[in-house]
Amino acid sequence: MAQQRSEETRAHILDAAVRRFAISGYNAASVDEICGDAGVSKGAFYHHFPSKQAIFIALLEGWLKTIDEAIIALRKPSVPETFVHMTEVLPAIFAAADERLPMFLEFWIQASRNEEIWKATIAPYRHYRDHFAKLVEDGIAEGSLKDVDPQAAAEVILSLAVGLFLQGVLDPQGADWQNIARQSMQILMNGLAK
Amino acid sequence: MAQQRSEETRAHILDAAVRRFAISGYNAASVDEICGDAGVSKGAFYHHFPSKQAIFIALLEGWLKTIDEAIIALRKPSVPETFVHMTEVLPAIFAAADERLPMFLEFWIQASRNEEIWKATIAPYRHYRDHFAKLVEDGIAEGSLKDVDPQAAAEVILSLAVGLFLQGVLDPQGADWQNIARQSMQILMNGLAK
Repeated sequence: MAQQRSEETRAHILDAAVRRFAISGYNAASVDEICGDAGVSKGAFYHHFPSKQAIFIALLEGWLKTIDEAIIALRKPSVPETFVHMTEVLPAIFAAADERLPMFLEFWIQASRNEEIWKATIAPYRHYRDHFAKLVEDGIAEGSLKDVDPQAAAEVILSLAVGLFLQGVLDPQGADWQNIARQSMQILMNGLAK
Repeated sequence: MAQQRSEETRAHILDAAVRRFAISGYNAASVDEICGDAGVSKGAFYHHFPSKQAIFIALLEGWLKTIDEAIIALRKPSVPETFVHMTEVLPAIFAAADERLPMFLEFWIQASRNEEIWKATIAPYRHYRDHFAKLVEDGIAEGSLKDVDPQAAAEVILSLAVGLFLQGVLDPQGADWQNIARQSMQILMNGLAK
């Protein structure tokens, strides 16, 4: 019971932080406000999170876990099909990012000024780059992809994904992003396929 | 003479604003501070710029002009060569963006909350997308590219460019970005070429 209540409190704090960061911005949001919104004491807050930054990193990691579950586990009969199919999960990723985008952008700003935040921000890029490189290696091994440099191919795929994500969240009405993502990945795979 | 002095004052204000935005952030930087740094009166400031936002838009437009001069004017014997050659100008674009990145990210945050800033932020994307689409049309007409949807192909190229730019400025040591940009564009062109 105590365990369950503790997890509920943690979830309340995270929910309140997301909303508060979206309204006030990461910098302007205070731990006091987040505690007020969540209806918890500062003692309870600091029991779960040593700092506002720790909350941010927890939110980032939660969102990345959603992406991981949707992407890393995905396997189709061939590697090119796997990559093209990844674009189908785009709406789920957008929905999970949702109102958090301004917060992520703010974090990127902090990242350019603070070593620790920079590491937390850069880590997921490298994580996905490594995953994509491994997939490309598998594609070369199975004979579906040309004998390209897996790291370079992974960078292309990742750059495309980052660019699509950023545009999609900034300009949701500007295009049919899922369709563009699928076509983009198909063009890339055409360029990489044997 | 008065004309020349006025342009010098404008340039001083822009220089001071870039530095101040980089140090304090766009939100925290005040017109008073920028005037102090530039050594101009508030009257002189408001003669040139109606607001802090107007200065930001002027800086954004100046930077985009640098890109335009490097990219829009570029023409090589074929369209695929033109696109691949564009990646050679990447270092110049990075150098021009330089310490302005945190400011651009902050502007994206504002853009997600403010209609007018959103328009100024989105306009360049659409501008480059249209330019790329026109180039792809030329490539189809000259027979170097497959009969693809020019808008979709332009989106792919733009997404890749946005993703490379963002990663390159956030993680300059993480990879040889110019090399990755060239390889990426080559893979894309392989996928689009007839």
